[in-house]
Amino acid sequence: MKANNTASLLKDGKELNTFTRPASDMQAERDRTSFPVREMTHFFNNGKENTEFLEKLFERIQRDPAFNNKDFYDLDYKPLRQRTFEQIGRMWSYLDELGADSPLARRFLSPFGMINPSAQTRVSVHYGLFVSALRGQGTDKQYEFWKSQGCLSLNRFYGCFGMTELGHGSNVAELETTATFDRATDEFIIHTPNTAATKWWIGGAAHSSNHTVCFARLIVDGKDYGVRNFVVPLRDPESHNLLPGIAVGDIGKKMGRDGIDNGWIQFSNVRIPRTYMLMRYSQVTPEGKVIEPPLAQLTYGALINGRVAMAYDSWVWARRFLTIALRYAAVRRQFSSTEGREESKLLDYVLHQRRLIPLLAQAIGIEAAATELYRLFDEVTHHQASLDTSDRKAVSDMVDKTKELFSLSAGLKAFSTWATVDTIDECRQACGGLGYLSATGFGQGFDDWVVNCTWEGDNNVLCLSAGRSLIQSGCKVLDGKHVTGAADYLGRIKTLRGKSLASGDLRDPKVLVGAWESVAAQAVMDAAEAYKKLRARGVSDKAAFEELSIDRFNIARLHTRCFQIKALFRKIANANPSIQKVLTNVGLLFALWSIEKNGSPFLQYGFLTSDDMNKVIDLVTFYCGEVRDQVIGITDSFNISDFFLNSPIGNYDGNAYENLMDSVTERNVPGTPCPYQDAMNAFFKRTPYEQPRLDEI
Amino acid sequence: MKANNTASLLKDGKELNTFTRPASDMQAERDRTSFPVREMTHFFNNGKENTEFLEKLFERIQRDPAFNNKDFYDLDYKPLRQRTFEQIGRMWSYLDELGADSPLARRFLSPFGMINPSAQTRVSVHYGLFVSALRGQGTDKQYEFWKSQGCLSLNRFYGCFGMTELGHGSNVAELETTATFDRATDEFIIHTPNTAATKWWIGGAAHSSNHTVCFARLIVDGKDYGVRNFVVPLRDPESHNLLPGIAVGDIGKKMGRDGIDNGWIQFSNVRIPRTYMLMRYSQVTPEGKVIEPPLAQLTYGALINGRVAMAYDSWVWARRFLTIALRYAAVRRQFSSTEGREESKLLDYVLHQRRLIPLLAQAIGIEAAATELYRLFDEVTHHQASLDTSDRKAVSDMVDKTKELFSLSAGLKAFSTWATVDTIDECRQACGGLGYLSATGFGQGFDDWVVNCTWEGDNNVLCLSAGRSLIQSGCKVLDGKHVTGAADYLGRIKTLRGKSLASGDLRDPKVLVGAWESVAAQAVMDAAEAYKKLRARGVSDKAAFEELSIDRFNIARLHTRCFQIKALFRKIANANPSIQKVLTNVGLLFALWSIEKNGSPFLQYGFLTSDDMNKVIDLVTFYCGEVRDQVIGITDSFNISDFFLNSPIGNYDGNAYENLMDSVTERNVPGTPCPYQDAMNAFFKRTPYEQPRLDEI
Repeated sequence: MKANNTASLLKDGKELNTFTRPASDMQAERDRTSFPVREMTHFFNNGKENTEFLEKLFERIQRDPAFNNKDFYDLDYKPLRQRTFEQIGRMWSYLDELGADSPLARRFLSPFGMINPSAQTRVSVHYGLFVSALRGQGTDKQYEFWKSQGCLSLNRFYGCFGMTELGHGSNVAELETTATFDRATDEFIIHTPNTAATKWWIGGAAHSSNHTVCFARLIVDGKDYGVRNFVVPLRDPESHNLLPGIAVGDIGKKMGRDGIDNGWIQFSNVRIPRTYMLMRYSQVTPEGKVIEPPLAQLTYGALINGRVAMAYDSWVWARRFLTIALRYAAVRRQFSSTEGREESKLLDYVLHQRRLIPLLAQAIGIEAAATELYRLFDEVTHHQASLDTSDRKAVSDMVDKTKELFSLSAGLKAFSTWATVDTIDECRQACGGLGYLSATGFGQGFDDWVVNCTWEGDNNVLCLSAGRSLIQSGCKVLDGKHVTGAADYLGRIKTLRGKSLASGDLRDPKVLVGAWESVAAQAVMDAAEAYKKLRARGVSDKAAFEELSIDRFNIARLHTRCFQIKALFRKIANANPSIQKVLTNVGLLFALWSIEKNGSPFLQYGFLTSDDMNKVIDLVTFYCGEVRDQVIGITDSFNISDFFLNSPIGNYDGNAYENLMDSVTERNVPGTPCPYQDAMNAFFKRTPYEQPRLDEI
Repeated sequence: MKANNTASLLKDGKELNTFTRPASDMQAERDRTSFPVREMTHFFNNGKENTEFLEKLFERIQRDPAFNNKDFYDLDYKPLRQRTFEQIGRMWSYLDELGADSPLARRFLSPFGMINPSAQTRVSVHYGLFVSALRGQGTDKQYEFWKSQGCLSLNRFYGCFGMTELGHGSNVAELETTATFDRATDEFIIHTPNTAATKWWIGGAAHSSNHTVCFARLIVDGKDYGVRNFVVPLRDPESHNLLPGIAVGDIGKKMGRDGIDNGWIQFSNVRIPRTYMLMRYSQVTPEGKVIEPPLAQLTYGALINGRVAMAYDSWVWARRFLTIALRYAAVRRQFSSTEGREESKLLDYVLHQRRLIPLLAQAIGIEAAATELYRLFDEVTHHQASLDTSDRKAVSDMVDKTKELFSLSAGLKAFSTWATVDTIDECRQACGGLGYLSATGFGQGFDDWVVNCTWEGDNNVLCLSAGRSLIQSGCKVLDGKHVTGAADYLGRIKTLRGKSLASGDLRDPKVLVGAWESVAAQAVMDAAEAYKKLRARGVSDKAAFEELSIDRFNIARLHTRCFQIKALFRKIANANPSIQKVLTNVGLLFALWSIEKNGSPFLQYGFLTSDDMNKVIDLVTFYCGEVRDQVIGITDSFNISDFFLNSPIGNYDGNAYENLMDSVTERNVPGTPCPYQDAMNAFFKRTPYEQPRLDEI
């Protein structure tokens, strides 16, 4: 039963009136679009073929009853876990068709996160972490073996990723679980020595996984060789009972992604064959000889996959919530900014434009940069797969490329995921109270999203790591060496240092790219010089980097933003001419607003004067206004159907109020009796207790 | 059943070792405290008497089984509503002792929000909004009448606050519900004319309230007099059934505060006696004569209560999450910042100090400002209660004070609640993955908190309103008039304009206060001049303010931060000498970090040179280091027991890992069978479907 919809009532033969007329407002906005929406969709999807692939997939998904998500926001965490598992079963059939191990599967997974991010994660933990570890860290023979056991078909098989421990997350090198080699039996003994060494957060461990890739310290003849990867069976594939020596528990409810059965694991002297250690880069022979890997980072390679995906997902999530908030802003009227009595659309307020439109530009910049990152990732993965580990030159090239990938992905993962946290929350607040209602999707979206700032590389730790790489690149430049990759502009420090805007035009992309390169390069080189000075004073490498923590953080921020801005302008330069004008306004807004947000260094390095900065601020307002008429067209070009948006105030038709009322009354049927009426009666109709009088004693 | 605790195992006669030794680390930190903790507690509570009052209350609450909150984070929204109602019943007995209508009750409610913010809200909606409206907007006789009906005793009585509609929240003046006077029967007819006019978000409406203060347009003889307040009965106090003409529904699950039964209400020609209109400031006579109120804002006075409370609650919430994150930082070790193998405490990392300690200083500044705001509020409320409405001078003074209260509370509410959003989230991220686990309290805390940015005055709307007041004050100064209250420093613009640090000492509170006043005053006066110029060019008042939206926002931010810094230094100046040194470092950190965060205007107005700004940045790092040794002492002085913290990683004893393991295994008993084993079997043991071959046709 739905509530009667009073808006459809007639009075004096006319429909009841209200000052809001959302659906026609939306159409009027749509009519302002000045570019071919379809062309823009291809731009965002990086090609017509991708658009068509995704549309076919989306159509099938939204027809599939397994993915009905009407009650998604209302589910408690226990039923959500079951729902999630059932959806994984269904997702598997899609993956199986696409090729579970294929790059196509990635395109499938990322948008699936819009429906149920927990299902996306659980599948990613298996394929993206567990299977990637087998493929990346195992020998070809080992990978074939685990495939024969069902790791791709998911028949009697589900893997989890046993890395994090209660006491150690970021510092993987200090994990405490041990894998002690027993030469007599050709086995490793996997053991959890103390509470802090308990594997913690392991997605899939609580209920569904029967194997894990366990990160443990390799101990041979009493010597500790550091952390390696071992496949450890957890449960009997037939009975699903825990194997001897394995203790597992549920870590319980979380802030979000409650469809994931995260668990803890303790190992008590669990024996596995020596051949279960993943031996692509490091080996232990039956005699107990240990061969070390060429680069420690190669051992943790599986994580990089997730970082790259999160940089891209930042775009996928941001565009969804921006669509909802911008569409709502196009129909919501409140107060009046002009003289008439009619109230104004939120989208017409300068402050509202300023709150949302730069975030739209930022999201588009995030996409451009993440797409470049994916290209680098694919290149590295391709090389890695075909690497001849006996070819030292090839391995050394590989190590260089991997370092570049680590450094670039660290900054992009951190700042893109943070930007999307801010975007989701700003979009929520921009919808006023309705943003706080579960039905509109923001609360669940925020809670599900923010974990990206922490897992697979804590953002702050990643920033420090990206900052360290930048300082190292800066030192190379100071030493007269050549720097390649994303930090190559440091090589031009001589021309970049001391540049100022002077008579440059702030509406010229080249000028803005120059501004960002100048300021970012100076900041990086100043930090590199400071580092050199500290070292010259005899300060240790570690202490010098620690002292420069804040600089490392700040240069990572400036460099990453500079990269995103350049990536966006590069992408725009190759776009179809019919959409270049709108996109250039978006790019300018992104670059200018980013200057406003990071004002101090632009003033401190003298690139901008105080007057220039005021011009920047005015231009941000100006370009918000320029892009304003195109935002509904842009959100349409994101091509997210109402099903995937899952927010009645963001529907394509713009009919926000009635859609919301329908959604709310469908899920909370009016007339349902209060489930705690007895408790209310007991209180409201109470007779107050009074101590009986006892006067004589 | 708890999991066996492996940390208590023995091996070779010794307890199993781990690199983490949290409890002794915590004690070592505590030993560094250089000030009398008890004295600091009194400082934060604004007096020894308050400390003792609160301690007595807290002791009783945490012994009271009604407030057991062990499972609080695990409750789904439906049981949470019932739990919340039951707690309200129990809270009432405390309130009844304190005097439900007394200022003491406020001190009770605010900390109660740490246990169950939904219960705090539901009680606040009744006493703080419904009853405040009766008292503030009703005549003395009307208030006495509703008291006789049970509005204080809650016997067969619970009120809700029928203001917001689906189509109108911030713009209260354009609410669409109508109250049409029927002279024939001496009644008002309350009516919802369309869907957008549906009362929405009304806390208590879904289940518990039987009366509402309804905001509706007063219509007499076809003339619309604007919005007034009317008491409308919703449910029969005996049967609790909805009265004729009243339609109510549940608006369902929210991002947080799910213990509140928010609902929607539609009125269909509901008749109430004329005397149910609240008539302190505006009256309708039986003849239909309408007497207008002296100031429209007086009609919405009930909201101001909530705004003031939220500015103060920002402190209550921030200090709780800062306690958890700082205590965890004092025991969590990860990586090493020095040469030894031993890992370093998070609290010893420069970046970690930089992330948390300025937020601690900010929280302390928020408290000082909110306490001053409460004083102004009490003064205004006191005057209002004793106001002779026929005394025009008294009413005019009242109007001035009320305007000052509106303007100051707008900025403080907005920027304090936002600051606490950032604080909770930064604290969560600073605890790494554990911050995402429900057991540690951050997720629920964030979700429960963030609504403060939206309700009872959307923060952005409040900022624009505060900015408008500031421009008006600036114009007064330009016109040679006197400005009083928080913006009084604008009167000193001539000496403040063009000031620079020169040889001033950035470690001197006076210099920093001067810096903030100079920059804030220049920004406000520039905006006022811009406003005057626009007006002189013939731009309308409304259009001029709209064009200056970004300026209004920015000056509200600078002015509010300036006020908080001054309030903190004022409070420190009156503190016990034994704690002044530590507090002065805190105050300097707050002021300097706030400059770093708002760098551009300090550089643009030339108060600081580029070198000065680098000094500011270095000093922020320096004062983080100075305060670092005192943070555990400071969190202890907040005087929040483990019960109220409700986060095992933040307990006083510092034994984070074992407390967490105990908490998790108590709530998720190991060995509990997976509730969806059947679904897993169906998938894992499936036989793939293959289309049967049909070769010949």
